[in-house]
Amino acid sequence: MSTHADRLAALRAQLATQRLDGFVVPLTDEHMSEYVGGYAQRLAWLTGFEGSAGTAVVLPAQAAIFTDGRYTLQVREQVSGDHWAYVAVPATSVSEWLGNHAPDGARIGYDPWLHTRAWVDEATRALAERGAELVATPTNPIDALWADRPQPSAAKLTPYPDELAGRSAAEKRSEIAGWLAERRADAVVLSALDSIAWAFNIRGGDVESTPVALAYAVVRADATADLFVASEKLGDDVRRHLGDAVRVHDRLAFENHLRGLSGKRVAADPERAVAAIFDALDDGGARILAVRDPAVLAKARKNPAEIAGHEAAQLRDAGAMVRFLKWIEAAAPAGGQTELSAAAKLHDFRRQTGKLLDLSFNTISGTGAHGAIPHYHVTEESNAPIEPGQLYLVDSGGQYLDGTTDITRVVPVGTPTAEMRDRFTRVLKGHIGLATAIFPDGTVGGQLDGFARRPLWEAGLDYPHGTGHGVGAYLSVHEGPQRIAAPNYPGGGPNEPLRAGMILSNEPGYYKAGEYGIRIENLVLIEPRDVPGGEQPMLCFRTLTFVPIERDLIDPALLTPLECEWLNAYHADVLAKVGPTLDDEHRAWLAAKCAPIG
Amino acid sequence: MSTHADRLAALRAQLATQRLDGFVVPLTDEHMSEYVGGYAQRLAWLTGFEGSAGTAVVLPAQAAIFTDGRYTLQVREQVSGDHWAYVAVPATSVSEWLGNHAPDGARIGYDPWLHTRAWVDEATRALAERGAELVATPTNPIDALWADRPQPSAAKLTPYPDELAGRSAAEKRSEIAGWLAERRADAVVLSALDSIAWAFNIRGGDVESTPVALAYAVVRADATADLFVASEKLGDDVRRHLGDAVRVHDRLAFENHLRGLSGKRVAADPERAVAAIFDALDDGGARILAVRDPAVLAKARKNPAEIAGHEAAQLRDAGAMVRFLKWIEAAAPAGGQTELSAAAKLHDFRRQTGKLLDLSFNTISGTGAHGAIPHYHVTEESNAPIEPGQLYLVDSGGQYLDGTTDITRVVPVGTPTAEMRDRFTRVLKGHIGLATAIFPDGTVGGQLDGFARRPLWEAGLDYPHGTGHGVGAYLSVHEGPQRIAAPNYPGGGPNEPLRAGMILSNEPGYYKAGEYGIRIENLVLIEPRDVPGGEQPMLCFRTLTFVPIERDLIDPALLTPLECEWLNAYHADVLAKVGPTLDDEHRAWLAAKCAPIG
Repeated sequence: MSTHADRLAALRAQLATQRLDGFVVPLTDEHMSEYVGGYAQRLAWLTGFEGSAGTAVVLPAQAAIFTDGRYTLQVREQVSGDHWAYVAVPATSVSEWLGNHAPDGARIGYDPWLHTRAWVDEATRALAERGAELVATPTNPIDALWADRPQPSAAKLTPYPDELAGRSAAEKRSEIAGWLAERRADAVVLSALDSIAWAFNIRGGDVESTPVALAYAVVRADATADLFVASEKLGDDVRRHLGDAVRVHDRLAFENHLRGLSGKRVAADPERAVAAIFDALDDGGARILAVRDPAVLAKARKNPAEIAGHEAAQLRDAGAMVRFLKWIEAAAPAGGQTELSAAAKLHDFRRQTGKLLDLSFNTISGTGAHGAIPHYHVTEESNAPIEPGQLYLVDSGGQYLDGTTDITRVVPVGTPTAEMRDRFTRVLKGHIGLATAIFPDGTVGGQLDGFARRPLWEAGLDYPHGTGHGVGAYLSVHEGPQRIAAPNYPGGGPNEPLRAGMILSNEPGYYKAGEYGIRIENLVLIEPRDVPGGEQPMLCFRTLTFVPIERDLIDPALLTPLECEWLNAYHADVLAKVGPTLDDEHRAWLAAKCAPIG
Repeated sequence: MSTHADRLAALRAQLATQRLDGFVVPLTDEHMSEYVGGYAQRLAWLTGFEGSAGTAVVLPAQAAIFTDGRYTLQVREQVSGDHWAYVAVPATSVSEWLGNHAPDGARIGYDPWLHTRAWVDEATRALAERGAELVATPTNPIDALWADRPQPSAAKLTPYPDELAGRSAAEKRSEIAGWLAERRADAVVLSALDSIAWAFNIRGGDVESTPVALAYAVVRADATADLFVASEKLGDDVRRHLGDAVRVHDRLAFENHLRGLSGKRVAADPERAVAAIFDALDDGGARILAVRDPAVLAKARKNPAEIAGHEAAQLRDAGAMVRFLKWIEAAAPAGGQTELSAAAKLHDFRRQTGKLLDLSFNTISGTGAHGAIPHYHVTEESNAPIEPGQLYLVDSGGQYLDGTTDITRVVPVGTPTAEMRDRFTRVLKGHIGLATAIFPDGTVGGQLDGFARRPLWEAGLDYPHGTGHGVGAYLSVHEGPQRIAAPNYPGGGPNEPLRAGMILSNEPGYYKAGEYGIRIENLVLIEPRDVPGGEQPMLCFRTLTFVPIERDLIDPALLTPLECEWLNAYHADVLAKVGPTLDDEHRAWLAAKCAPIG
């Protein structure tokens, strides 16, 4: 197997044959996905980086890898500093770096199926200042070098039941048709995989942890649609489910279809559709309406059926988590457990629910110093024993037909230090500060982010990641458009107005490099909140995740009376909701974990 | 004098002669200023609107005026709903509205000296979707109709002393030259009036309340500069101060000068330089580097001399405010006072300092229902008597050579209601919540905004404006780039990293339409904060304004012990700092106002 250094050299040689001086390798696919199928893992193939967000840029004499605060430590462990410079985004953007480092007159290649048009414009401008040029490549040069590149998955599509979706696919297409009529548009391109899964009430198996299928779609103003997907993925059940109003084509026919929309007014999402889609529409003579894909907000605002599904999934998942926490509390001090064995055990408990379809992401199972890597991914090489004196952090979730879960808890192995308790309690205060917020309808997540950080800031501490991401309904565990994070967090999520029905994570943390990590994560649902005497529509969060928060890690002296009250009420809810689903032994353990403090 | 309805009709007739179907009238000047000279008050001339932010759009059959939440009430009082539709920004942008309302195929005019290029691009795209067109007019059609339009002011320039500026103009030009060298650029265009005043250490008198002069400048990589300004404004003192390295030209020579920069790499600020500047550079063959004007951040981060000046100015202004508050406390219940008489009295007290050069904005003197209009501007017509049972709100500031002040206090006339005290106390809690924040260096204002709102949100209340704006050093009372506001506040200020040396207002409020308004505003300076055991550079706010906050309006039962402590410590500081500057009678009054509560 070639080394990453070999691959970098081979890519440079390949670029030279294409008269290119450089190439940009983002971590995404033709759908701007965050999690991508094996066939699209070009960044990992080239650099060894396994995080969920990053970009590499190769120049003749330099190469750089761009990651955000979540991956500051991980990128240094996985990618060789001998060959790669580490660059932090958003402090420095890829375009800005290209503008400062590309040789004068350079031709820098990019794959137009892997970038937005806004990125292409921005990088083009930055390079123009050096007299350099951004050049679309007809094929991706990495694919020519990657001998054992996986084929795109051939997983079958399945229909998603109307009773869980809350609305039929025909109803959703009608709504999209109404949206098109309002905009006097003829058609809309859907290219985000979860938008397509949502709009057609279908699920797939092409991407690990996210039940989506590689496809494109065009929905028309007459509420019919064209769906572009490999025909071997469709059984009779799915064809029946799609019905006559959906014309199925091969995925490869998509680009030509776009070129055929001459004279039509076609909506496409500048954040979700890649540059090649806009290029094809332009070339074909369509009139483009650049606007957000109408599925995005509709999908984010869960309907009553989706909320009921989520509640059931969270409760089921909580049962598995409680069994895991009881197990590890005894197993970890006894010795012999590792990050991998613990993650496997948790997977077992989730499987034992009988309803688990997949994990919602690779379990982050990190003990001691590994816990301080917010998106740590345990491998056979990195696998560490869980040892006394450590904090063990586990961030995990399950994909169930009725909902997607995501939870983080921290377990002390033996007695935690006073510093660990101080930090854990501050993270908890931040978690409660956000969980108890009441805010006007339409407040944006960036405005709430500080509530979760303030107790850490007061001690001169912080965490290098956002506070909350959206979560799908048996879809992506990271779902837009809303986000709770610093307002300048990349992607604009913190500027999205929050609305009733949105589900978000609430996950402040603290990371002491080389020592331990802390994160407390629950999912929360946004609901209307009637405030007596209030003057405008207000919203609040309702917590959906019911798993105890470790009392041994809490210093009650740091909690205000209101914080104490929140914690005790939360634990009472945990016991009342999850207790009845457990056997006597587990229920007794849970009751002890849920005893009031303060 | 013609009515506003006549003027609207005249403009439509004028547009028809220019083959235009519409025209856009922003409230700004050729420098993208917020406060503009009388000659540029085209929006007020056309519509009657006197707020500090707004835009009018005239179409053949419709006309609309666009204002933000601060002016929701005011615009309805000043602009006739018979002729104008009221549109709220940012909910609807001017471009979006044009795209939805312009007739198919329309030609919509704009003055390229009054818009940014980004706006021109955005409006062009929105109109293109209607098959309509945005057309630059060679002159502004309103100027042809406005018979008694004022001439631009002929006020003299004055040098600003180096000891107050903290750095000489030559040092500042050297820094800008270094900035140009880093960017391999030949020159930078300065068109923001306060950037020019700051960079050249000059002040002017062309704009009410803001000591700037109408001018443009181009600073070169050799640290010389071209200054474009009416020659009658320059006395010998200013010519000596500018020195040989600054070439003075007439303001009218600016556009041709830009056209002469062929082949040069020229920096211009896309947010602060108007479209006509970019057009002239483009037409002349310059290579444009679109980047923020280098004076903006340097000006925002006050140096020790500017901070010392501010401290002196705030203390002097506090003396005037204390005398005013003592006076009104007795005068208001006695009867016979009005909004205008109170504002005049406050102006007198500021004049009596012997150092007042101007007000820093039109005093907002609003009693009762007028207090509920956040940017209320009292006129002879609107002038209301100050009466028992009301709250009187006064938001005001002075321009002193050593600093610019801005403060809001609320005075109860007689006994306030329980609701008034509840609301005032919540506003105070928000003010304290922000004043006591500790946050990492580079945190953006949008992340802190929620701290000031939370106590109101908890009661279902909010305020329709930002929480804090930057303040200049004997310059603009609204100075960028930083701002504390919702992240989606127009202009990007809430995304600006906060840095030590920045000065901001802290001014949460509450407004009950038709009844009363509350706002508590102090200026705060950002300083480094050493947190023992902390892990990263932290910042905090130091309050610069020392004027008592009315105890009769505070319900101590709503304050936490820490909030009480903050208030008592603040009042102790007020007494210690301002007391010694007062006579016995005023000092005794102040001591009573500063007595601890709780």
